[in-house]
Amino acid sequence: MTGHLLTVGDEILLGQIVNTNAAWLGERLAEVGVDLRRSETVGDEVGVIAGAIERATADGAALVVVTGGLGPTHDDVTRAAVAQAFDRPLEFRDELFERIRARYEARGRTMPEIGRVMAEAPVGFEALVNPKGSAPGLWGEREVDGRSQVVVVVPGVPHEMRAILESFVLPRLVERQDGVVLSRTLLTAGKGESDISALIAEQADGLPDGLTLAYLPSLGEVRLRVTARGVDREAARRDLDAATDAIRGVLGTLVFGEGTATLEAVVNDMLRERGLRMAVAESCTGGAISARVTSVSGASSVFCGSVVAYSNETKADLLDVAPATIEAEGAVSEAVALAMAAGARARLGADVGLATTGIAGPTGGTPDKPVGTVWLAYDDGDTQRAVRLQFTTDRAVNVALSTTAALDLVRRQLLRRPA
Amino acid sequence: MTGHLLTVGDEILLGQIVNTNAAWLGERLAEVGVDLRRSETVGDEVGVIAGAIERATADGAALVVVTGGLGPTHDDVTRAAVAQAFDRPLEFRDELFERIRARYEARGRTMPEIGRVMAEAPVGFEALVNPKGSAPGLWGEREVDGRSQVVVVVPGVPHEMRAILESFVLPRLVERQDGVVLSRTLLTAGKGESDISALIAEQADGLPDGLTLAYLPSLGEVRLRVTARGVDREAARRDLDAATDAIRGVLGTLVFGEGTATLEAVVNDMLRERGLRMAVAESCTGGAISARVTSVSGASSVFCGSVVAYSNETKADLLDVAPATIEAEGAVSEAVALAMAAGARARLGADVGLATTGIAGPTGGTPDKPVGTVWLAYDDGDTQRAVRLQFTTDRAVNVALSTTAALDLVRRQLLRRPA
Repeated sequence: MTGHLLTVGDEILLGQIVNTNAAWLGERLAEVGVDLRRSETVGDEVGVIAGAIERATADGAALVVVTGGLGPTHDDVTRAAVAQAFDRPLEFRDELFERIRARYEARGRTMPEIGRVMAEAPVGFEALVNPKGSAPGLWGEREVDGRSQVVVVVPGVPHEMRAILESFVLPRLVERQDGVVLSRTLLTAGKGESDISALIAEQADGLPDGLTLAYLPSLGEVRLRVTARGVDREAARRDLDAATDAIRGVLGTLVFGEGTATLEAVVNDMLRERGLRMAVAESCTGGAISARVTSVSGASSVFCGSVVAYSNETKADLLDVAPATIEAEGAVSEAVALAMAAGARARLGADVGLATTGIAGPTGGTPDKPVGTVWLAYDDGDTQRAVRLQFTTDRAVNVALSTTAALDLVRRQLLRRPA
Repeated sequence: MTGHLLTVGDEILLGQIVNTNAAWLGERLAEVGVDLRRSETVGDEVGVIAGAIERATADGAALVVVTGGLGPTHDDVTRAAVAQAFDRPLEFRDELFERIRARYEARGRTMPEIGRVMAEAPVGFEALVNPKGSAPGLWGEREVDGRSQVVVVVPGVPHEMRAILESFVLPRLVERQDGVVLSRTLLTAGKGESDISALIAEQADGLPDGLTLAYLPSLGEVRLRVTARGVDREAARRDLDAATDAIRGVLGTLVFGEGTATLEAVVNDMLRERGLRMAVAESCTGGAISARVTSVSGASSVFCGSVVAYSNETKADLLDVAPATIEAEGAVSEAVALAMAAGARARLGADVGLATTGIAGPTGGTPDKPVGTVWLAYDDGDTQRAVRLQFTTDRAVNVALSTTAALDLVRRQLLRRPA
């Protein structure tokens, strides 16, 4: 099924917001087997939006997904544009109006008069319930030159768009595929894309017909998505599981999870399963590890807290790092990293201590310790472990890579302890 | 000048990376007066890319900016596509080859054989030096139906794309405008878009001809961009400065800076100018304030460090918050916030203490203190100040809003002290 994505909004065109919807939709549509040919952003003009839908149709797009411009204000013109492209009038629907009004009232608010337009839909279009907002989505179908075409219209507010896609649109697209599309995503940390691809070269080359493998790298992590397309669901599932399990077998502990898990959530779960609590001493990461660990709801049961020690005095006063050690070895050293991890553990009453000290840059490097030099340390009372890493000259990149590497160090150490 | 932006790359279409280039270019092109009509992403196929350029041309685009697909690998086909769209052959240029080869050698590397293609350009195109990478940009011009058209081609790597735009492309586009386009951007924190627009309604309504005002909101901050278009540079500058200064006058201390400044960099600079150092005690923000302050190079001269106190024990042990206070008032309270700020200041030897305590959510709220309740506190020894805020039910949003509000609280307090 070929697809075309149309994002509507002056604010996207003007760069006032980044189009994260396009990335999310691109990935999700690929997973359900849509072959996205173009992704296009246009401004809030009826003629321009309708023209873009007509052009996608002329290009043979079997699916057009339109996001944005479904709100109640005068610059929300997507309903009118879709009606024009399909040459069907807009109709006011009482049942949509009632649902929208009830939603406002459930929140103790009165529906504004301008909200009435959200109850309009082009004749023949199905309204899709919006679980997270007022404006319903729309699903329309037609025949063009003997080919069937689906046009899906959803709000631009990301969590509303996602909710409608996940509840209605994606499952329905899966049903409409000729056959089935299934996928599994393995999450890895600790190796780059080229190392990973070298490790699993045999499995990747030996994938049976109908299976494909995609690498999705980000800072310090690589996701591997295996997709199976076939006629028989059972056979596709069997092939997918066999291939994914084989890759997982080769990668071993490089894989930290599957699907939409995050490294920080996995680490928190591992701590919880082992009845452990963690404390962090951060120097070069400046609070980024703590921010990531606490971004997961429920972190308070496994995370005591942290000390961001940006000065030698703080390392000494709050983490009990001996000034003589800093003097002798330097603040960026194995000895100081280990002392910080031990200090965080002791001072915050934690089972596990994690520490970072390094030169984030862009300045502050020396020949021995260039910018990007980072020491990580782990201490759980029984085991002490320190690792030296060498990253880039970019401050933000170094912080992100150090943060991922530190969380992965904890994960690897916890794997050695029974859950 | 009407414009069309074309992003090339399967990885963008598949959602493997977010197209931040489109937002950056959208904003910069708007600043220099380009009226961007469409922004489009297509895959790595010669015919599809050439077709998109032809379609933009048919739509009358005076400027087409193409990003991506200029590297040395087999899926980098943008050079060939542009040559096809312009119906001009590619030629190998010795001077480009020498520059690319010298760049590799300056880094102690040998230019790979596949790198030769980066020295090719369509006949008649000007090569634009890439200050940050190997592949040069391209600038081509032609007449189409009596109208002149410019096609600019730049790499997709963000810092390379930006460098070429800023060095060559944007200045040249400014020169080509009929007249001049100038802009100033005011950065505000502490009020939402609707409050700001109500405050400056008179100034906005009274903008002279040729001046426009755009609101660029993000979490906790609103940027106001004033743009002046005119024939006479001096007159445009005078109008722009008068209008912007008038708006700045009304908004007063809501404005924290101009241009590309950040709130964290402004706070760090204010601390530095006053010879002060700051320490932070974070509960609900979980390290996000520290991460933001330390994202600015040179933070170590004004930032002692922080304690992320996720448990009551840590608040007591490392920040000297009296357990009786927590018992009596609750961890999310004015008294605890103030005690945390004082504790951070004292224990880290700082001049200024900043603290947050709140219920980030999505769970943990009570009728008295619903999810999104946040206390912020500031303590510089002379002045103690606490603020209660009520945000949303979304954890990530609450952390981001609390972080911005906390930094803005420090800024406002420091404004009262002489620099």
